[in-house]
Amino acid sequence: MDENAILLVHCPDRKGLVARLTGFIFDHGGNIVRLDQYSSPENRFFMRVEWELKGFALDRAALTGALPGLAAELGISYELFFTSERLRMAVLVSRQDHCLFDLLLRRRSGEIDVDIPAVLGNHEDLRDVAAMFGVPFHFFPVGADAAEQERQLLEVLERERIDFVVLARYMRILSPAFVARYPRRIINVHHSFLPAFSGAKPYHQAYARGVKVIGATSHFVTEDLDDGPIIEQETIKISHQDGVEDLTMKGRDLERKVLAQAVQLYVEHRLFVDGRRTIIF
Amino acid sequence: MDENAILLVHCPDRKGLVARLTGFIFDHGGNIVRLDQYSSPENRFFMRVEWELKGFALDRAALTGALPGLAAELGISYELFFTSERLRMAVLVSRQDHCLFDLLLRRRSGEIDVDIPAVLGNHEDLRDVAAMFGVPFHFFPVGADAAEQERQLLEVLERERIDFVVLARYMRILSPAFVARYPRRIINVHHSFLPAFSGAKPYHQAYARGVKVIGATSHFVTEDLDDGPIIEQETIKISHQDGVEDLTMKGRDLERKVLAQAVQLYVEHRLFVDGRRTIIF
Amino acid sequence: MDENAILLVHCPDRKGLVARLTGFIFDHGGNIVRLDQYSSPENRFFMRVEWELKGFALDRAALTGALPGLAAELGISYELFFTSERLRMAVLVSRQDHCLFDLLLRRRSGEIDVDIPAVLGNHEDLRDVAAMFGVPFHFFPVGADAAEQERQLLEVLERERIDFVVLARYMRILSPAFVARYPRRIINVHHSFLPAFSGAKPYHQAYARGVKVIGATSHFVTEDLDDGPIIEQETIKISHQDGVEDLTMKGRDLERKVLAQAVQLYVEHRLFVDGRRTIIF
Amino acid sequence: MDENAILLVHCPDRKGLVARLTGFIFDHGGNIVRLDQYSSPENRFFMRVEWELKGFALDRAALTGALPGLAAELGISYELFFTSERLRMAVLVSRQDHCLFDLLLRRRSGEIDVDIPAVLGNHEDLRDVAAMFGVPFHFFPVGADAAEQERQLLEVLERERIDFVVLARYMRILSPAFVARYPRRIINVHHSFLPAFSGAKPYHQAYARGVKVIGATSHFVTEDLDDGPIIEQETIKISHQDGVEDLTMKGRDLERKVLAQAVQLYVEHRLFVDGRRTIIF
Repeated sequence: MDENAILLVHCPDRKGLVARLTGFIFDHGGNIVRLDQYSSPENRFFMRVEWELKGFALDRAALTGALPGLAAELGISYELFFTSERLRMAVLVSRQDHCLFDLLLRRRSGEIDVDIPAVLGNHEDLRDVAAMFGVPFHFFPVGADAAEQERQLLEVLERERIDFVVLARYMRILSPAFVARYPRRIINVHHSFLPAFSGAKPYHQAYARGVKVIGATSHFVTEDLDDGPIIEQETIKISHQDGVEDLTMKGRDLERKVLAQAVQLYVEHRLFVDGRRTIIF
Repeated sequence: MDENAILLVHCPDRKGLVARLTGFIFDHGGNIVRLDQYSSPENRFFMRVEWELKGFALDRAALTGALPGLAAELGISYELFFTSERLRMAVLVSRQDHCLFDLLLRRRSGEIDVDIPAVLGNHEDLRDVAAMFGVPFHFFPVGADAAEQERQLLEVLERERIDFVVLARYMRILSPAFVARYPRRIINVHHSFLPAFSGAKPYHQAYARGVKVIGATSHFVTEDLDDGPIIEQETIKISHQDGVEDLTMKGRDLERKVLAQAVQLYVEHRLFVDGRRTIIF
Repeated sequence: MDENAILLVHCPDRKGLVARLTGFIFDHGGNIVRLDQYSSPENRFFMRVEWELKGFALDRAALTGALPGLAAELGISYELFFTSERLRMAVLVSRQDHCLFDLLLRRRSGEIDVDIPAVLGNHEDLRDVAAMFGVPFHFFPVGADAAEQERQLLEVLERERIDFVVLARYMRILSPAFVARYPRRIINVHHSFLPAFSGAKPYHQAYARGVKVIGATSHFVTEDLDDGPIIEQETIKISHQDGVEDLTMKGRDLERKVLAQAVQLYVEHRLFVDGRRTIIF
Repeated sequence: MDENAILLVHCPDRKGLVARLTGFIFDHGGNIVRLDQYSSPENRFFMRVEWELKGFALDRAALTGALPGLAAELGISYELFFTSERLRMAVLVSRQDHCLFDLLLRRRSGEIDVDIPAVLGNHEDLRDVAAMFGVPFHFFPVGADAAEQERQLLEVLERERIDFVVLARYMRILSPAFVARYPRRIINVHHSFLPAFSGAKPYHQAYARGVKVIGATSHFVTEDLDDGPIIEQETIKISHQDGVEDLTMKGRDLERKVLAQAVQLYVEHRLFVDGRRTIIF
């Protein structure tokens, strides 16, 4: 596969942005393979454009050097990615294995094009799962000093040059300081259709309330528990015959799906955050 | 279609209930066409059995007379219905027409086998809709004394021998006294997947929160707003491109569907209430 | 609402199309409100761009006059629409009313922004339905000479300056000559998930096959029965308890939904045909 | 968990079957935990009843001995199972790993309560996957004499006392003789919503036809390819942006789900076959 460039742009909306940006690409001989654009009711402009570097007049370094000037001229914020540069993802886990298995399997099949250099657990239960796929497992036992643990955790993330962090049913709350180190770069899965049943034991809550639908939600982690921008949600119908155990089992499929989808979107640079909302191209 | 009897039974679970009840039907020559049974984790027993009166040794009066003795012997609570006796439903509305239209159309096509002798509105907007289908419309203007209005409302319901009441996007809260007059016999549709976004303007709430799924819920009305036993829920995926108006439009299809489904289940005597949960056969 | 222009472009893919087309709009002071673009694996380019006429340097006539030159220069095919010009839709029906009711209701609520100047039936059953909404009904009885009937049908369509035709459970096959008069402008709903169960009595076929899912499909009509480009499909799960009558009833909701969605997309100029496939923006 | 007995009954419908069968259980002191019953439009009777052996007057041997007499008296066909006797499942595979992984993981988590004593492949690709979960892998290379291979395959199945066989994306057609050895005991997953796109390369067929929904189907294997009684079907919406590769990837999730669901139903004895249809309790 040939290499593409991906440019993400966000800024206040104004006339001519698409024309100027696509004009820049065209003037240097670039062939656009996909362009998505959205203007919010609050007049924010979002654009993702992907083009082939083959035949493009600027190489990666030249392109990287040329963009700041263009951005200043147009008054835009941007991020630039290359499809040849695979992101590095860390997975934080506790005792449940289904989300971790799912991510490792999708990585294995090539469905999600990402590197997974580290799994970090606050229990040892999933050491074997990581080992099955040859991924190093780091153990940070529950009960130790939380601040000290997060310090060590961050050390691993930095040493492994982690781009983003996935909480695959990680049952511990991260400190605001930790979250601030990876802004919009920590993805969690919550086992309910948020905002319903946030917090602990959502399947128990769902059973008690007698809902006829359960769900799962993947979202960015912010300082506020279960309150970050939502990336993906799935639901499934249930009946009075489903006890808490059935809900837990049926919900697993949803959890896997929304988490995998969120990781996929992140890895392909198709995700913007706009306040409490996400834009997905 | 020949006439069937439908017996709904609920009581503490114990051995032999199915055998004794089906034995009673069999001993009188009844042919069971459908039987559903459920025992809850809390040891409550629920059963719905429907059998043909043709060939059954007891006529309606004799059957009605025989059941209290059997019930006392077995220690069960029960309700008895006959498929030949169509229920009478009143519809309360405000200004939105989609749910009212939907119910009137399903009645017209025979999809829902119910009588609709009255539509009652606190606005005059839907008088014409009722008229299109030849249903009398009663107007109880907003702004009048609420208690006095409910008294008049009840008068109509009683005069029309209403079996159950449907709130088809009725935007006024009924008093506890009113609800107590029709226990488990008032069905509402709320335009969110409860318990999320209860109360006012759920589509605005959903937009503000940035959810990726919206829903609708039909439920029995209790004293607590939007908190009664849930009958049916449906969801649909949305995207960042959907504004509040789009959510409102997309949600209408869900509202129609969950309300029609709830009415259908009620009319066919397939609904039990078990605390905050519904059992649906 | 202010007036917008909508330009649909399709042609062989090549570099610079987006840049040139958006450049044209920008150079005349146009503010783009939405842009969608897609390049197919077969190297076809599709684009839909919508911009505000307010502040645009060309008025409708000048814009209409300027486009042929630009199109020739770029080698593109295009269509130009204005949001102020509401399309005119004819609905062909037989005896089933649910799709006709649905379209008339969505028109009534403003959900679908279209004119419906004529309903044409080969049975008289739905004359009353059209009358309820004040739409003229034209009757073309079954049994008459088919060719002569189509001639008269076309006469009505032309007299009413119909832009596109919707078959709302119309149970007669149109001749190739008729179809050729409205290429890609006739939309049908078929009551199965095509290509399964094409032809007659799909719910009977579905029951006989014992499927666990039924569906409905809206598609453009071509010379080949049930084989035109698919616009929208919906499915619903069923169980062994559902007889043919249940399937028919449950399917109605799907039919309504896929047909309404297709009409919506058509009316908003968000539909392209690419061989046997549709592109939907 | 205490042991339960499960009795599956099918026969021509007639009065009193439920009463007699539940009476038999009650007379011996059995506590019914779940009862499902269905009478088909073709007057076939199906019933599944599960009761606790604790407190039941007959032990397993006595119950097994008593049933033939009761069955002869009532004119019913039946099967008797005990929840303590876990079924033994063989999995046949080729090169794709996602369905095999899914089954092994659900077995591992206890979600599906089954023994998997053998994986049999006509390629060696998945030997490692079986090994990861400690399951013996048997290799029957493509290219060898087919009849001889099936003979060896059957030998393994018999030696391992296999109760039922699952084809987890096994890409070879089994002979009628083989199928006849495991009637209604071979479950396949086909990667389309049957009857659409039976045979080879269904995702390619789906792409070419331009459908907006894809699906997957689990079904019993009969002599006729992709034509056996359907157990479960799932669908997912797709768009014009999805190429064959995207369909293949999205379809995998559906394949896993419908196959796991079919295995679950089989293992819990909740599946009847009625001609070309399945009854699912």
